Amino acid sequence: MGIDPGTTIMGFGLIKVVKKKMSFLQLNELQLSKYDDHYVKLKLIFERTIELIETYHPDEIAIEAPFFGKNVQSMLKLGRAQGVAMAAGLSREVPITEYSPKKIKMAITGNGNASKEQVAKMLQSLLKIKTLPKNLDSTDGLAAAVCHFYNMGRADIVGKSYTGWAAFVKQNEKRVKK
Amino acid sequence: MGIDPGTTIMGFGLIKVVKKKMSFLQLNELQLSKYDDHYVKLKLIFERTIELIETYHPDEIAIEAPFFGKNVQSMLKLGRAQGVAMAAGLSREVPITEYSPKKIKMAITGNGNASKEQVAKMLQSLLKIKTLPKNLDSTDGLAAAVCHFYNMGRADIVGKSYTGWAAFVKQNEKRVKK
Repeated sequence: MGIDPGTTIMGFGLIKVVKKKMSFLQLNELQLSKYDDHYVKLKLIFERTIELIETYHPDEIAIEAPFFGKNVQSMLKLGRAQGVAMAAGLSREVPITEYSPKKIKMAITGNGNASKEQVAKMLQSLLKIKTLPKNLDSTDGLAAAVCHFYNMGRADIVGKSYTGWAAFVKQNEKRVKK
Repeated sequence: MGIDPGTTIMGFGLIKVVKKKMSFLQLNELQLSKYDDHYVKLKLIFERTIELIETYHPDEIAIEAPFFGKNVQSMLKLGRAQGVAMAAGLSREVPITEYSPKKIKMAITGNGNASKEQVAKMLQSLLKIKTLPKNLDSTDGLAAAVCHFYNMGRADIVGKSYTGWAAFVKQNEKRVKK
C-alpha cells in the first residue's frame, strides 16, 4: 500500500504482487480540505489508514515524504499528517518505507522532475488502469506503492525503512523498555 | 495528562483535579536518544501514550507544541513525534489541547521566558513534589498539564483545542464520510 499523507488530501493506492508481477487493486483519495479543524484532519488520516490496513492487510506501506517545504509551519503540519499515518502502520506492525517525491517520480518515469500527468499516464499504462481519477493528487499514493515495488530487494537505493517492530525487539531485547 | 513529545525525550505528567483543586499524580520521561531508528522512536511515543491513557484514563490531554524551530528538517521530525502522540489521544477519544512553550511558562511562572529551573521549582511548590527528577526535561509534560488546568474555562486564552470526535460527528454528521 502506498500513501501520500497531506493536510488537504491523502492519496492512497494498493497493488498486489504475485511472483514479482504487480497488478492494480485500488486508487483513491481522502479529501481533507473541507475540514477546518486540524485535529479532525489528523483523526481522519489515522482512521482511514487503520481501515485500509484492516481491509487489505498490506504486507508493507510506502509513504511519500517530502523532506523540504516552504516553511517551518507547513513542515510541522505535514510532519503531523505523516506522523498519524505512520502511527497507524506502526500500531498494526506493518513495515514502513518512505520515499521522497523525486525518488518516486524517478522510479516510475525515469525522470525525477516529471509532471503529475506524466506519472499518472505511466501508472495507467503499467497497471492497466481503465480510467484515471479527475484529481491526480490521488495517484501519488499509488505511485509510492509502485516505487516501493521497483525498489524491493535493492537495499542500496531503498528509502528509509523500518523493518518491523517484532524484528527490532528480537534484536534489541535489552534496549526495549516498557 | 500533559505530554511534551520530542525526538530525543518525551516528558509526561499527570495531575488529578477535584473540585477545582489539583494534586500531583505522576511525572516521568521516555528516553529516546538511545535509539537511532526514527520509526522506533515514533513507535515508542505512540505506545507509551496509549499505555498512559489506558492506565490513567485522562479526561484531557495537553501537549507542549513549539510552533517555531531551527529548520524544516527538525520541524518535520517534531511534527511526526507530535503526530503519533496525537494519534494515540485521537484513537482513544481523549480531547487534545496544545500550548506553546511560552504560554506554558507564562501560565506557571508569570514569565514567558522563564528558565527550566524556574518552571520546575514552581511546579514543585504548587504540587508539593518531594523530589524533582535530575533531568528537568521531564517536567515539561507536567507543566503542560498544569497550564491546561489554569486555562480551563478560559476559552479566550486557551490554546488550539480539539473538543472531541464524538461531539464533532454529532454536529457535522453530513460532513463526516467513512
